[in-house]
Formats: sequence, structure tokens, C-alpha cells
Amino acid sequence: MAASVTAALLIIGDEILSGRTKDKNIGYVAEYLTGIGIDLREVRIVPDEEEEIVAAVNALRSRYTYLFTTGGIGPTHDDITADAVAKAFGVGIRHDPRAVAMLQERYPPHELNEARMRMARIPDGADLIDNPISKAPGFRIGNVFVMAGVPAIMQVMLDAIGPTLETGDRMISRIVEAEGLAEGHYAEGLAAIAAAEGRVSIGSYPSFSASGFRNQIVVRGKDAAAVDATVHAIRELLGRLRGDRNPL
Amino acid sequence: MAASVTAALLIIGDEILSGRTKDKNIGYVAEYLTGIGIDLREVRIVPDEEEEIVAAVNALRSRYTYLFTTGGIGPTHDDITADAVAKAFGVGIRHDPRAVAMLQERYPPHELNEARMRMARIPDGADLIDNPISKAPGFRIGNVFVMAGVPAIMQVMLDAIGPTLETGDRMISRIVEAEGLAEGHYAEGLAAIAAAEGRVSIGSYPSFSASGFRNQIVVRGKDAAAVDATVHAIRELLGRLRGDRNPL
Repeated sequence: MAASVTAALLIIGDEILSGRTKDKNIGYVAEYLTGIGIDLREVRIVPDEEEEIVAAVNALRSRYTYLFTTGGIGPTHDDITADAVAKAFGVGIRHDPRAVAMLQERYPPHELNEARMRMARIPDGADLIDNPISKAPGFRIGNVFVMAGVPAIMQVMLDAIGPTLETGDRMISRIVEAEGLAEGHYAEGLAAIAAAEGRVSIGSYPSFSASGFRNQIVVRGKDAAAVDATVHAIRELLGRLRGDRNPL
Repeated sequence: MAASVTAALLIIGDEILSGRTKDKNIGYVAEYLTGIGIDLREVRIVPDEEEEIVAAVNALRSRYTYLFTTGGIGPTHDDITADAVAKAFGVGIRHDPRAVAMLQERYPPHELNEARMRMARIPDGADLIDNPISKAPGFRIGNVFVMAGVPAIMQVMLDAIGPTLETGDRMISRIVEAEGLAEGHYAEGLAAIAAAEGRVSIGSYPSFSASGFRNQIVVRGKDAAAVDATVHAIRELLGRLRGDRNPL
């Protein structure tokens, strides 16, 4: 098995759990990490409550190579991520002079009030993550990367973080369209192929629309030859079954 | 504080974690539960791996009134949710005659092969959840509801489940647009209002688009009078600040 670098993503925010805001970060982060060879292994969404954030940060940072968080780093009273992360690491938190300097680039002195200064509160020992859009930085402490929740800002922060990450072998992903065949039709054959090749994972994904079901078989793995051989075996299987097809 | 009924959502599927499929169920379930007076308190996404599913099911079902799961109940080898849930509850799993009858409505005998019969494997003691779209049922065991991952099917299952759920007082949610004001501008005043009224939660949500930042303040609570009074106090605060406005 090739080297594996793992990650978890922690989304912090009542607004996602209430359904008021529809998350746009999970899919983006998942695709980004997969693309650079990091396996996203778990996602959690928790409310803006300190003990929930602390518990999730500690559960996830100890289990995976990296933990990424989004949300809760603005200037308002419900932005408690930095304090919660400091607590999770058992370190202090204070106004970081580098972060204060970033905010000073944006706000004239009479506008840099106490609330905005909250955005310069950074746990001791953390490195800052630049925010070219609205200046208030994210930060990295240990293996935890704390990012903004606003998708445009989260994305530029991720671009800044990306090159600093250790990455594993990239996951190769190939799709075989199971056109005209139902899952139940090829499931047994697919299970036999999956059992015979331990270096790949095979998923079967039905989707449903006005035009009916569509099934895609996805082969994923880090060994290109094993992925290719599996795709070939699946195509042969589907070809055999099409002689005996039933569209549902 | 009014009666509270809580829930967690567990999304099962490698395809979400790889970014290949973008989740459409979290936002839908969040909005649905909020609408009927159930507080969604946590969401997790885990891969198609038995021990991960078992651990998450047990962590979440013991903590919240209800746990809803989506994904992993089809006919293929990677559909292991039913087995994992049976394991989490420490019960057996077998072909349920009611579920077999449902599948028989859809498939003629020669097409109801072993793989399709997997979809009739239901943990002992579970009740079935109807699936009018593709027949293969979901199920309820204890406080856990196991649903399909395909959004259209998940949604009809949720409609069937909804009326059977105990619900709490509905959350009242009001939005105040902080037009022309920055978060950092009103954050201190908002914190004071939040500190003075314990029966509501106040969130401030910036969003960013080509036309710039937009801030919405959301007041949520189950006591209508407290929500109204808080909205009033926030409007007064914003009015005072607009005398002294700065658009960033």
C-alpha cells in the first residue's frame, strides 16, 4: 500500500445545522485534498459552542494527519473558534502583533475597535494564514488549520496552505458507466472483482433523475496498474451482462 | 427553556469524502428538522467502513434524541450500512420477509438475485421505512433511522418518518439585514444584547460576492417575545450606528 496522508474537516456553525446556510465548503475541500493526494477521512459539523468545538478538535487532530476547520473566526460574539482551539491545545491566546498589523492594513486606527481586534486573537505558538480578501488571518497550530467559513476566503486560505502540506500518493479514480444495467444486476460480479483485488476500492453510485436511474462504478486506488486491470475486469463483466440486460 | 428534541445526521459514503459526489442531503435534512422543531446538533460524514460506521452510530445515538443516517443501503458490496447498524446495536441481521415482499413487487423472481436480496437484510427488531421510488426499504431501529443516500429517495423516506417523530417547540428565526454596516462595527453592541438575553441565540453571518460583503444578523429562539424584543434591540443598535457608518 502506498503512503497515506489523512485529514478531517470540522465545520463550525449553527447556521449550517439550522439549514439557513447551505454548506459549500465540504465538497470543495474534499475535491482539493483528493487532488493533492490527501485522504479526507471524516467530516463533522458542530454548533458554535465551546465544549463541542474543543471535543471535536481533540478527537480529530489526534486521529488524522491534518485537521482543517472552517467558520467562527470573525469579530462577533459567536466567533469562538480561536478560543476553543487554544483551549483544545491547552495554550494561551492573545492579540498577535502580526495579526494586528494585518488588520491595521485594512482599518484606520479609529475603526480598529475591540470587536475587530478579536480577529487578531491567536493561540500561542500558532502560525498565521494570510487572508488577502478581508485581511483577518486564519492560523495553523500543530496539525490543525483554522480557516474562515466564507467560501471565497476559505478557498484562498486553502491555496496558501496547500503547498505546505505533506501529501501522499495521489488517488487515481476511474469511472465506468454501467449504462443500461441495474446495480442489482452487476452487484455479484462486482463483489467478486472487489474481493480479488485488495489494492483498489470499488464503489457503485446510483443516481436518480427525471430520466430514470443512472449507475456509475468508480474504481479508486493508488496503484495505476491495479486500477487499470480492475476497470478492464469491470468492463468485461458489464459486457457479459448486457447480453442479458434488464433496464431496471 | 422550552422542550428540546435533538438529532444527529450521519452521512455514509466514500464518494462524499472524495468530493466526487457533492452532498445534497445535509442542507435538506437540516431545514426539514428545524421546520418541525427538532434541533440538528451534529453531522458526521464517514467512509464505507464497518468499524467507522459502528463507532459513529454508537457515539451519536447515545447522545441525541434521534440519529438519521443516509447512504449504503443498496445492493452492492460497498453497501454495508445495515450490517454496521446491526453490529452497533448488537443484534442479528437477516432477510426480512416484509422487505422481501417489497422487492418482489418490483422484481420478477428470476431477477431477484442474491445481490438484490441484500437490500432485504434488516437488523432484528427494526421497523421498515417505505421507499415508493425503488422499493428497497430503509428501517428504524431504536432511535436510529436508516435512509437511502439518493436524495429523491431520502426525501420521501423523511416525509414518511416525519409524522412519527416527537418534536419540540419550533425554533423561531428572524433575520435583520445589517445593510451598510460591517460586522466589526456592530459586534460590540451585539455582544451586549446577546449577553443580556439568554433565551435567544444571535448569529452574525457575513457573505461575500462580486458586489461586496453582506451581513445578516439572525436571531433564533423558542420564546417569541424574547425573539421580538431582541430584534427590536438590534434594529435600534444598527440605527444608532448608521449615523457613524463605514461600509467596510
